[in-house]
Amino acid sequence: MKSLEEKILREGIVLDGDVLKVGSFLNQQIDVDFLFKMGDEIARAFADEHITKVLTVEASGIAIAVAAAHYINVPVVFAKKSKTINVHGEVYSARVHSYTHCIDNNIIVPKDYLSPNDNVLVIDDFLANGKAFEGLIEIANQAGSQVAGCAVAIEKGYQGGGDNLRAKGYKVHSLAIIDEMSAGGIKFRK
Amino acid sequence: MKSLEEKILREGIVLDGDVLKVGSFLNQQIDVDFLFKMGDEIARAFADEHITKVLTVEASGIAIAVAAAHYINVPVVFAKKSKTINVHGEVYSARVHSYTHCIDNNIIVPKDYLSPNDNVLVIDDFLANGKAFEGLIEIANQAGSQVAGCAVAIEKGYQGGGDNLRAKGYKVHSLAIIDEMSAGGIKFRK
Repeated sequence: MKSLEEKILREGIVLDGDVLKVGSFLNQQIDVDFLFKMGDEIARAFADEHITKVLTVEASGIAIAVAAAHYINVPVVFAKKSKTINVHGEVYSARVHSYTHCIDNNIIVPKDYLSPNDNVLVIDDFLANGKAFEGLIEIANQAGSQVAGCAVAIEKGYQGGGDNLRAKGYKVHSLAIIDEMSAGGIKFRK
Repeated sequence: MKSLEEKILREGIVLDGDVLKVGSFLNQQIDVDFLFKMGDEIARAFADEHITKVLTVEASGIAIAVAAAHYINVPVVFAKKSKTINVHGEVYSARVHSYTHCIDNNIIVPKDYLSPNDNVLVIDDFLANGKAFEGLIEIANQAGSQVAGCAVAIEKGYQGGGDNLRAKGYKVHSLAIIDEMSAGGIKFRK
């Protein structure tokens, strides 16, 4: 998505330690007009897949999941992060390591919200090492749901998570894939 | 909003301890079609207010804030919750007690995203004691922004937070106001 690449170059800030800040339009501040353009693009990429639910994880995945689900016309389910394991058996859960915050989270979804009848599109704002996507796919698997694929605004291609998912057979649609990033510049995958 | 009252009666679950569960359409699972009807309703209520930004707090406020901002055609800014106080002075912050989770959170917004030129609409999914709204208003005040008003899907009227805000002169638009709630039933304000 050329317009996203241009926006990243114009408004994104590369920090030390491999961090791309896009908080001015995709995180703590959300350019809603642009968000819906991204959502529309994701919906078009999966138009033939008979999606029944969009699955994401709080908090930064919710906005783009809602925008895509608006065009696909299905509900959003978002996993919550929890430091404790729910022992009541009423939830699907997976363990996800956050490299950003250096902690392990359990992500949980109540069993009521996913079923074997669902064909799930997994969405998040960023895909780097792919741990969040793997956790969400694990939750979909626990529910017996099909996974139609993964969609993301920005994939850090050089971290390999997206290509790992592709190697496993998942359709991964990234609106922008960064193959090199440094203070000197950003190179997108062609 | 009659359709929201009907949806609460049909799909909401009243639990012990004064909890209304609407996770099947407004929290961990989001009925996106209905979400945008609520967003449209909020946008209409503030159509003459020249809103420049919608302000909310992660995580459950993000979806309805995005839906309303889509119709108002302005960016969303969401506050993050943090247990530590940021001492770098790059953020606006306020202390908010969560009665649901029995903890104090600092909610923070980077200074880049609010300014004295902004006329802010504060949005959340629930309004009970009003602490989250007060914290968000405090952040808007720190930024020198105007506060055009507050909008919420479900107000627990009997907890008084909404009426406190009205008494302070804020325009508060709630799509449904619950004045009584028990296992026996729910009464909405006329």
